Amino acid sequence: MNQDFPIPTAHTVADLRAIVSGWKAAGETVGFVPTMGALHAGHVSLIDIAKTRATKTVASVFVNPKQFAPGEDFGAYPRTLPDDARKLAEAGCDLLYAPNGPEMYPDGFASTIHVGGPSEGLETDFRSHFFDGVATVVTKLFTQVRPDIAVFGEKDYQQLLVVKRLAADLDLGVEIIPGPVMREADGLAMSSRNVYLSVEDRVRAVRLNALLFACAEALEKGELIAATLKTARMVAESAFDMVDYVEVRCAKTLAPLPGPVLDRPARLLAAVKLGTTRLIDNVAANPA
Amino acid sequence: MNQDFPIPTAHTVADLRAIVSGWKAAGETVGFVPTMGALHAGHVSLIDIAKTRATKTVASVFVNPKQFAPGEDFGAYPRTLPDDARKLAEAGCDLLYAPNGPEMYPDGFASTIHVGGPSEGLETDFRSHFFDGVATVVTKLFTQVRPDIAVFGEKDYQQLLVVKRLAADLDLGVEIIPGPVMREADGLAMSSRNVYLSVEDRVRAVRLNALLFACAEALEKGELIAATLKTARMVAESAFDMVDYVEVRCAKTLAPLPGPVLDRPARLLAAVKLGTTRLIDNVAANPA
Repeated sequence: MNQDFPIPTAHTVADLRAIVSGWKAAGETVGFVPTMGALHAGHVSLIDIAKTRATKTVASVFVNPKQFAPGEDFGAYPRTLPDDARKLAEAGCDLLYAPNGPEMYPDGFASTIHVGGPSEGLETDFRSHFFDGVATVVTKLFTQVRPDIAVFGEKDYQQLLVVKRLAADLDLGVEIIPGPVMREADGLAMSSRNVYLSVEDRVRAVRLNALLFACAEALEKGELIAATLKTARMVAESAFDMVDYVEVRCAKTLAPLPGPVLDRPARLLAAVKLGTTRLIDNVAANPA
Repeated sequence: MNQDFPIPTAHTVADLRAIVSGWKAAGETVGFVPTMGALHAGHVSLIDIAKTRATKTVASVFVNPKQFAPGEDFGAYPRTLPDDARKLAEAGCDLLYAPNGPEMYPDGFASTIHVGGPSEGLETDFRSHFFDGVATVVTKLFTQVRPDIAVFGEKDYQQLLVVKRLAADLDLGVEIIPGPVMREADGLAMSSRNVYLSVEDRVRAVRLNALLFACAEALEKGELIAATLKTARMVAESAFDMVDYVEVRCAKTLAPLPGPVLDRPARLLAAVKLGTTRLIDNVAANPA
């Protein structure tokens, strides 16, 4: 227990389990929100959801090295633990779990979890290591915390589906609850990485969500998928410094849509770069 | 619950968890012995060990397709569930968990667990899929049963170390207890696959343990490792139809030994074929 924080804080699995076991013995249910810290209103919205689904809420803050590739922003990723602790306390979270690196990955650690299915394509085409890193740390966090439910944001939509698949496949006994994307006043999806944006890039960034919402509207009106995506990619190429993907996929499986027009609940997903900052976003598109 | 068996039997995760949760609520501890059925005295010895370590004992019987490659003996593997149930009842096991294939691997199942470290070399050089299949099913069985301890036989020595690594890496909360190799009167290690042996091959099979014990004795007397293994491989080549490996490794890590003679607790491990039947065995070798 860390007494310096405004919220009960565990840094080890042993401390964590002692607290959670006590809760369970007292008949409490446990909601869990895993984060990499640098908390913003999007994270707080996930805490709010967890509080409606369980009687006790745990948030973890751990910048997971296994989901960063060499050359990505593991070193630069914002680390703001005292500020995170304060935000979690204000949100009414009951416990902060902030393990250190060796607690999660001690010497000799040798296990990796791969989830196929929804991990195929999209992010994996550009960050091939990413979902193995996510699946491995999420499994560990689940077996450490042993929550009844866990809340994952739709901001990372593919991750949400991968975690759902993982939890079902490995019988982790955790129900996965989605949290809607939280957006700034101009529509930019909240992200801990938004702090990387220069003033100019922050202005340009709004075009990402504008483009996705416009595409969704077009598809919902019955426009052809191929033509709509072609136009969207042209617009994105001119607006941003790099376009990894602009795609529409089945909302449930992330499989490509079979027909020429929207015929089922779908998701428009995009990843682009502004300077060296990579942004992802997604919006729903549902047939009329 | 299956009323036809002489032991309480669960075929689904839901039935299993209902029983185990009831035990835990009553303060019982749970020991677990995962098997592929075709039970023999080796398995019964693992049940006996579990009973000394926990107040309730669960055994699973599941022939795991993910640890067989195409062309291996998944279809031919002996399936003797009623007989297994009787043996478990006689051994004083409290619950048989016998899931069916779709209960373990439903449509859309997409997750695989890979454990590096002790899985490298030996069996993996000849059955590259094997330990991923084992790690995936053992994780599922652990998250389904939620035991306090689990007993694994030293007969599958590399598997024992892989499972220890897995349980620690994924914080599965299960202590792994080893059970010594059980042998027939002539020293052949008990195995469900021994039933495949022809009468002639059953006679020849005794040479495997004889060779390993002779090697261990030579190494314990200070003989050179390289020369001892060279001789052992020659003997094995003449005795068996195929020799996958005869190796000596560190008993704790399965790393190759660095020196010319035995300088730490080690394990002699071998895999050979008699006709189409593949046998593995291992014995301890400890420096004087």
